[in-house]
Amino acid sequence: MNIAVVGLGLIGGSIARAFKEKTGHMVYGWNRTQQILCKAKLVGAVDGPLTDDRLAECDAVFIALYPQTAIRWLTEHAPLIKKGALVFDTCGVKQPVCAPCFALAKEYGFDFIGAHPMAGVEHAGFDSSTGSMFEGASMILVPPTGMAIETVAKAKALSLELDFERVVITDAAEHDRMIAYTSQMAHVVSSAYVQSPCSLRHRGFSAGSYRDMTRVACLQEDMWTELFLDNSEPLSAELGELIGRLQRFHDAIASKDAETLHEMLRAGRVRKEEADGKVL
Amino acid sequence: MNIAVVGLGLIGGSIARAFKEKTGHMVYGWNRTQQILCKAKLVGAVDGPLTDDRLAECDAVFIALYPQTAIRWLTEHAPLIKKGALVFDTCGVKQPVCAPCFALAKEYGFDFIGAHPMAGVEHAGFDSSTGSMFEGASMILVPPTGMAIETVAKAKALSLELDFERVVITDAAEHDRMIAYTSQMAHVVSSAYVQSPCSLRHRGFSAGSYRDMTRVACLQEDMWTELFLDNSEPLSAELGELIGRLQRFHDAIASKDAETLHEMLRAGRVRKEEADGKVL
Repeated sequence: MNIAVVGLGLIGGSIARAFKEKTGHMVYGWNRTQQILCKAKLVGAVDGPLTDDRLAECDAVFIALYPQTAIRWLTEHAPLIKKGALVFDTCGVKQPVCAPCFALAKEYGFDFIGAHPMAGVEHAGFDSSTGSMFEGASMILVPPTGMAIETVAKAKALSLELDFERVVITDAAEHDRMIAYTSQMAHVVSSAYVQSPCSLRHRGFSAGSYRDMTRVACLQEDMWTELFLDNSEPLSAELGELIGRLQRFHDAIASKDAETLHEMLRAGRVRKEEADGKVL
Repeated sequence: MNIAVVGLGLIGGSIARAFKEKTGHMVYGWNRTQQILCKAKLVGAVDGPLTDDRLAECDAVFIALYPQTAIRWLTEHAPLIKKGALVFDTCGVKQPVCAPCFALAKEYGFDFIGAHPMAGVEHAGFDSSTGSMFEGASMILVPPTGMAIETVAKAKALSLELDFERVVITDAAEHDRMIAYTSQMAHVVSSAYVQSPCSLRHRGFSAGSYRDMTRVACLQEDMWTELFLDNSEPLSAELGELIGRLQRFHDAIASKDAETLHEMLRAGRVRKEEADGKVL
C-alpha cells in the first residue's frame, strides 16, 4: 500500500516511522521545512517526498497538521486524492475538523475518517517521534454517518498495523467532550500549577506528585491555543466544575472542617478505584 | 548500630528494608498490628520486635507514624530512649511535629531531628514498601535551632545510608510552605480532578496526561486529612492562588480570547523550563 503522511512532527513522524518499522508499506512524506524531510528520508521514516503525482497513487493519507492547517491542506489537495482512498487527520478536536473534511470527501469521492491517536510526549517535533509511539495506546476513530462498515474496518485494521492497543469508534461531539476532560484540562491544570513562585524552588522538596502534575506544562502553545479554542464550550464547562470542586476543598481546608475534607478525599479515592476498574 | 523503626507502613517498612538490605545495622520494629511485624521478620526487614528494653539500646529511632500518633508515641517513650540517641520522625508536616518533639528531646537528653523522606507510592502499607524506595529521592531534615553540626552530619550520613540522592536541610516553616505546593496541593488537585463524571468513561479516551493527573487520588484519606489540616494556612493560600490562575484560564477559553490564552500557556511553558533548570 502507498501511504502519505502530511506533516512530520511528533505524531506524523511517529506514524511514518511505525509504518516503515512494522509493515511493508511505502511511505511518502510532506513537511513544511525541507530539512526535516531530508532527515526523515535519512533515518528511513519515509521512502521519499510526497509529490502531487505520488499523492494521486496513495491508498491512505494521514494529515498530521494543526486543525486549521489540516483543513486547508485537504481543501487544496482534495482534487488530487485517489478515488476511494482513505484519509485520516490526527487532530485533537473532531467537530471543527470532521465537518468540512467529511464534505470534501463526499465531493471528491474519497473517504475521510476523523482520527485522534491518544499518544504523545511532552516534546514536539520529528526528533521526539518514535516508531513505538502508539504501542499500548488508543486510536479514536470518528467515521461520518453512513460510512460503509468495510471502510471503518479498513481504518481500524490500518490503525492496528501501527500497534495501537485498541481502537475506539465514537462521534465527534462525544470525542470532544471526553478529550476536554482527559487531555485538554490536564494541560490547563499543569500550566496553572507550575506558575506558582514555588516551582522555581522545588528541587529537594519535590517527588513524583509534583513531577506528574507539571509534566505537560511544557507544551506547544500555538497548537494548544488552537485546540482549546476549537473546543471552548466543553473545556470551559469541565474547567468550571473542577474550579468548583477545588474551591470546596479550599474552604474545608481553610476552615479546618475535618469531616467534610475527609469525605471529599474518600470520595476521590473511591472514584479513582472505580475509574481504574478495581473491585470495590 | 541498633536502629528502631516505629510503624512498619509504606515508609517505615521501606526504611527497615533499606537498612537491612544496604547496611549491617540491627533493626528492631514496632507495629500496631502483630501480623505485619511477623511478616517483616519473615522477609528480613527487621531483626526482631522493638521492646522497651531494646529501645533503650537503640542509637537511632525512626518514628514512621501519622503526626499526632508520632507525637504521642514519643511523649510516652521519651523516658526510655538512650541519652544521646538520634530520633527522626517521617511526617509530611514539620511545624506541628517538630515543636513538641524538640522539647521532649531537650527534656530527656536525646536528639530529635525532623525528617521528611520525599518518596512514596500511591499505595499504602508494608506490602508496598521496598528497600529501594529512597534511591534518587530527597531527604528533608529539620534540625532544631542550635543543634550541634556533628549531630546534623550524623543525621545526614544515616540518611545517605538509605540511598537518598540528596539531603536538604531547612526549617519547619519553609518545609511546610514548600510541601503545601509540591506535594499536598498535588493530592488535592488529583482528588478533585478524578471526581468529574467523565472519569468513569475515560477508557479509550485517555493517555499519559490523564493518568498522571489522577494517579495520587488513590490516597489514604485518614492520613491526608490530618496532614492538610496540620498545614491549613500555607495549603489553602497556595490553593487559592491556583484557583485564581485556573479561573483566568477558564475566562480566556470561555471568551475565546486567543491572545491572553496563548500568553498564559507560553508563561507556563517558560516557567516549566526554568523550574527544570533548562537553559532559556
